[in-house]
Amino acid sequence: MRICRFDNDRLGIVANGLVHDVTAIQERIRAATPYVAKGDAIIAALPEWRDRLAAEAKNTPGVPVAEVRLLSPVARPSKAVAAPTNYADHIAEMAAARVASGSKHTAKIGTDGIFLKAASSIVGPSEGIPVRFPDRRTDHELELVIVIGKQGTDISHDKALDHVAGYCLGLDMTIRGPEDRSFRKSPDGYAVLGPWMVTADEIANPDDVPLLLKVNGDVRQQSNTSHLVYGIRRLIEFASSFYTLYPGDVYYTGTPSGVGPVKAGDVITLESPLIGAMTVAVRAHVCGQS
Amino acid sequence: MRICRFDNDRLGIVANGLVHDVTAIQERIRAATPYVAKGDAIIAALPEWRDRLAAEAKNTPGVPVAEVRLLSPVARPSKAVAAPTNYADHIAEMAAARVASGSKHTAKIGTDGIFLKAASSIVGPSEGIPVRFPDRRTDHELELVIVIGKQGTDISHDKALDHVAGYCLGLDMTIRGPEDRSFRKSPDGYAVLGPWMVTADEIANPDDVPLLLKVNGDVRQQSNTSHLVYGIRRLIEFASSFYTLYPGDVYYTGTPSGVGPVKAGDVITLESPLIGAMTVAVRAHVCGQS
Repeated sequence: MRICRFDNDRLGIVANGLVHDVTAIQERIRAATPYVAKGDAIIAALPEWRDRLAAEAKNTPGVPVAEVRLLSPVARPSKAVAAPTNYADHIAEMAAARVASGSKHTAKIGTDGIFLKAASSIVGPSEGIPVRFPDRRTDHELELVIVIGKQGTDISHDKALDHVAGYCLGLDMTIRGPEDRSFRKSPDGYAVLGPWMVTADEIANPDDVPLLLKVNGDVRQQSNTSHLVYGIRRLIEFASSFYTLYPGDVYYTGTPSGVGPVKAGDVITLESPLIGAMTVAVRAHVCGQS
Repeated sequence: MRICRFDNDRLGIVANGLVHDVTAIQERIRAATPYVAKGDAIIAALPEWRDRLAAEAKNTPGVPVAEVRLLSPVARPSKAVAAPTNYADHIAEMAAARVASGSKHTAKIGTDGIFLKAASSIVGPSEGIPVRFPDRRTDHELELVIVIGKQGTDISHDKALDHVAGYCLGLDMTIRGPEDRSFRKSPDGYAVLGPWMVTADEIANPDDVPLLLKVNGDVRQQSNTSHLVYGIRRLIEFASSFYTLYPGDVYYTGTPSGVGPVKAGDVITLESPLIGAMTVAVRAHVCGQS
């Protein structure tokens, strides 16, 4: 099942290129969720409500995907976590920059750990990316993103996939420079998610997902999660050895080589045959505008 | 006004050592807040609802503070941001450790930037701190915490205090080691907030707030926000030059010298004459338990 959010916080099921509006169920689920529940109500409710969502989708006419404005498939992630150096080819391409900057990062994920992006930086493809500092290098980083589906801490490698609700495509937009990663990677719009969440049952092996990114039509990044240093299970085990993961937490799994700068006016396209495709416009940040 | 959360997600106004239960108003405010509103509903609603909260508090009998379990005064922060090196004496005490670890951090906040803590790490004083890795050094860091009250981005130095709802005491618990700060500082319970939020009108000058921390009764940290490298206004200006701040975002302003390790069984006390006092128990993390 492919679950999207669109237009003005509406919930949709995507099938055969059409979006079926199931917002009525979204309202029921949210109304039944305590205010202080951690994570996202819809993602947490999927195991219980999935069949009803599917039935409702069959009963509502579809609208072509191209006619809706796609938002982040997760409305209220309690956190966004990300792997910094998780493809060997990206580690290699960043080595010279590390030496130049005097960085002592080891480029070993087990030593460097993972980092956070601000939940306030998350947007859907239709919202686009406002470049915050046009005079600083701002890179696209293509990633597979895990959407956590079930609360857990100290999750074992064997049980890790039980905690996955689904997957989507992500852009971990990054300003290069000396500041803490969690600062440079958290401006508004610097965590793009979409085009929708594909539920875990549709991706038999998350360690074999092809990924492709183009800028203005030119291929810049092309890889497969089979090249991840820490695979999907190990990433979940690792994060949850430090903190609890909640339904709706999103987990950027790392970027392959080919990262490069973008500027206002560029158009980024992400695609995977197992997930779908999305187009994201890059624009200028307007001072004072969120 | 002093606003607390207590027991099972109840809202209270603290006056003369008594907690007055105003949960009925909390429910009305939350029910009127859209699910996707960023930040915390109560903090965002304070300008409009403050007088009614005060009136309701006068109409309800109080319970002694010692008889309630205090929770984080912010129920649903959209992010927790923190200043890494913002007191000269703490920068000096960490210099040797930086050299020993080969860190290239400059210990200049403007260059190092600020970092994120996971929202899932936030707890109130009654919940205590489960030490995640008993064999690794885990330090207390006493801090004044700003609670943002009004959405804003690119906020000017002059307007910064207009965006403050209030202040509380905070513990930025920290595992020492090589990993990214946002990872080492984000285990469950590693961001303590309390004992309540004092609204901004009660603290005439936030750059002159005395702070004191004891471990098992011994004074370990004692300072004043007058020693901050980046003062309160500059911190807000700096963060909002990178991203939007939302009502209920919490901002750890940095720790003075005297940081040191704690272990299960220790009791940490924080106090400020302008805010209040709180006691936090340190315990062992139980594998698999959030």
